Amino acid sequence: MKVGRREHFNAAHRLFKKEWSDEKNLEIFGKCSNPNYHGHNYVIETWVEGPIDPTTGYVVDLKILKDIVIQEVCDRFDHRNFNLDIPEFENLIPTAENIAVVSWRLIRAKLPKHLDLVVRLHETENNVVEYDGSDEL
Amino acid sequence: MKVGRREHFNAAHRLFKKEWSDEKNLEIFGKCSNPNYHGHNYVIETWVEGPIDPTTGYVVDLKILKDIVIQEVCDRFDHRNFNLDIPEFENLIPTAENIAVVSWRLIRAKLPKHLDLVVRLHETENNVVEYDGSDEL
Amino acid sequence: MKVGRREHFNAAHRLFKKEWSDEKNLEIFGKCSNPNYHGHNYVIETWVEGPIDPTTGYVVDLKILKDIVIQEVCDRFDHRNFNLDIPEFENLIPTAENIAVVSWRLIRAKLPKHLDLVVRLHETENNVVEYDGSDEL
Amino acid sequence: MKVGRREHFNAAHRLFKKEWSDEKNLEIFGKCSNPNYHGHNYVIETWVEGPIDPTTGYVVDLKILKDIVIQEVCDRFDHRNFNLDIPEFENLIPTAENIAVVSWRLIRAKLPKHLDLVVRLHETENNVVEYDGSDEL
Amino acid sequence: MKVGRREHFNAAHRLFKKEWSDEKNLEIFGKCSNPNYHGHNYVIETWVEGPIDPTTGYVVDLKILKDIVIQEVCDRFDHRNFNLDIPEFENLIPTAENIAVVSWRLIRAKLPKHLDLVVRLHETENNVVEYDGSDEL
Amino acid sequence: MKVGRREHFNAAHRLFKKEWSDEKNLEIFGKCSNPNYHGHNYVIETWVEGPIDPTTGYVVDLKILKDIVIQEVCDRFDHRNFNLDIPEFENLIPTAENIAVVSWRLIRAKLPKHLDLVVRLHETENNVVEYDGSDEL
Repeated sequence: MKVGRREHFNAAHRLFKKEWSDEKNLEIFGKCSNPNYHGHNYVIETWVEGPIDPTTGYVVDLKILKDIVIQEVCDRFDHRNFNLDIPEFENLIPTAENIAVVSWRLIRAKLPKHLDLVVRLHETENNVVEYDGSDEL
Repeated sequence: MKVGRREHFNAAHRLFKKEWSDEKNLEIFGKCSNPNYHGHNYVIETWVEGPIDPTTGYVVDLKILKDIVIQEVCDRFDHRNFNLDIPEFENLIPTAENIAVVSWRLIRAKLPKHLDLVVRLHETENNVVEYDGSDEL
Repeated sequence: MKVGRREHFNAAHRLFKKEWSDEKNLEIFGKCSNPNYHGHNYVIETWVEGPIDPTTGYVVDLKILKDIVIQEVCDRFDHRNFNLDIPEFENLIPTAENIAVVSWRLIRAKLPKHLDLVVRLHETENNVVEYDGSDEL
Repeated sequence: MKVGRREHFNAAHRLFKKEWSDEKNLEIFGKCSNPNYHGHNYVIETWVEGPIDPTTGYVVDLKILKDIVIQEVCDRFDHRNFNLDIPEFENLIPTAENIAVVSWRLIRAKLPKHLDLVVRLHETENNVVEYDGSDEL
Repeated sequence: MKVGRREHFNAAHRLFKKEWSDEKNLEIFGKCSNPNYHGHNYVIETWVEGPIDPTTGYVVDLKILKDIVIQEVCDRFDHRNFNLDIPEFENLIPTAENIAVVSWRLIRAKLPKHLDLVVRLHETENNVVEYDGSDEL
Repeated sequence: MKVGRREHFNAAHRLFKKEWSDEKNLEIFGKCSNPNYHGHNYVIETWVEGPIDPTTGYVVDLKILKDIVIQEVCDRFDHRNFNLDIPEFENLIPTAENIAVVSWRLIRAKLPKHLDLVVRLHETENNVVEYDGSDEL
């Protein structure tokens, strides 16, 4: 049984590699590398898999999952600039993929061990990424 | 190949364990345990997996799947109170997880054997569960 | 200039007129009159019209509008039963129309006088009502 | 007859009044005044009202309206920072209201005179503004 | 008070004027004039305005409005070709605007006189038209 | 890590088997076999799975994936009639399943070998299919 919770946050970012010239950044990242940042309404879906607790009928209380996601991810990223404000991205390009990996680690650390976790992150209504932690192992 | 069909029903419920005191119910289920019920517009996605029938180009005719879901799930639950009106929940807390399990069993019983089934149930636009029957085995 | 804010709450209700027999209620309200209630995920859009404040660039701070809607409407109705828990509906059938009128009055009382108000209430993804207070005058 | 076209762009902004202290900005604009910007996926709906051209059956060819909106609004704002990159906001706070006014003027200048224009701008899925140009007159 | 109901139908069409050459049709209507038709999932929102009936709490029973829309519009247009199957479009180009006018007239004829009617027709998720009958007068 | 891109196209089709009588086609395909075609706003989600490139932070640049999907699928199918205009369907019934298989093959041929591909095709807001290429092997 899987259960999912949807939350959102709004943030600014820029796709930019310090080691590269502006021309190289523009070539690879296009307008996503514009120097003064742009931003998104990110939607994060957090999916947790595990058995139903026969006492409560829950896999996990979604109010608790909601609190973890808001505290670990939304409060940290909301109305922030990934490049300038979030230490994890000091040397990591804030692509949707990398934001998903960082979010997965933050949520994973607060979840009970017996539950599996997948994070799906929508950057726009047309672009989405999904991470299940398998690259961690 | 998987094919999915989306249907919906509106119902009332209350998360409440008879063996517990009102205080214990409130502690575990919060406002979901309010005595006079609340309700949701449930959206049920039914996903069926199997080979494409080379004669028709269908895995299963979605009109037939639609009829099964409406007859087995929507007509049974729509405009009903899970706690009071649906026998399966006489001793089962009507969490989204348990409603998904009951729906899965009802649909499964009407589907051809060679098709696999997953039920995804949206309780609100932010809360969703998904069940593939694996706990049945 | 109009500005809108979207919030939601989940509640149970039953369309039922005390003065009528069960047969008459069933004839007029159909399954919406089922005795044990059903429920919805209500979505309320609150639209406010007025001039832009040149100092702030706001018609009204949407965070303030959000707080008013949550306090006056969502906190009052969420996870409640309109027929049993909400005094305004003791002698008023909780149709979407009447819930919109009651919500409009509650929000109107907290808004600055120079702003106009429209409430749009979605009962399901297919059914919606909109009230601008014009029947009040 | 009204016809509407939906487009979108992603941008960064910060709500901030130069004449105010950081404390005053924080008091009025909250986290929207964070110094390093945040951003949104803006959705702009452009509504045009006029008679149906009996020759084409169109009020206006929506492909033409699309081109105007993309050229005048999306190409100008997309992947930009309203505060730093867009001259119209050098002395104008980039609230959704003010972005809608600026967008309305840019589109209005390219539309045939006999057509009326309304711009609806969604800043998030919960916050939206609508401008019909009436403050211009 | 306004109440709205959302329904849908799927149909094929082609924008094409018999009196014009293929080149002229292509110049004006672009790929919408392709000879073998294309199609859409049309979504029709029917908005009705009137006073709340104090007996029922309804402006109009949305189940009745639903039946009118399905019978007059959806059953007539669903899985049809506007150019070939629908008599009203024998000499009328099936633009969204004209489909909205025809739908408005069909629904208007079945509605009680004291109720006002607006039809909003979504041709795609980005293109929409709205008709209030004012060109009829 | 999976990344997804959403695109859309509008097309006409008819479910119809040449070898069958009209009666047999109507019996199996219902109104989907109507002779003059109907149509849909198809939404195609393209999901690609692979490792994050540590240099760019991308699994695949979604702008490149977008270009592949538009060139291989949307430009080919948009504003076309599957039965009459698309060679792949000369002897293949254009069900959503078969359109997904054909789209999968077209996109697969342009993707780097180390990436896995899943195509999800929405025919209406209620009907969807998903294909991962497993029947190809």
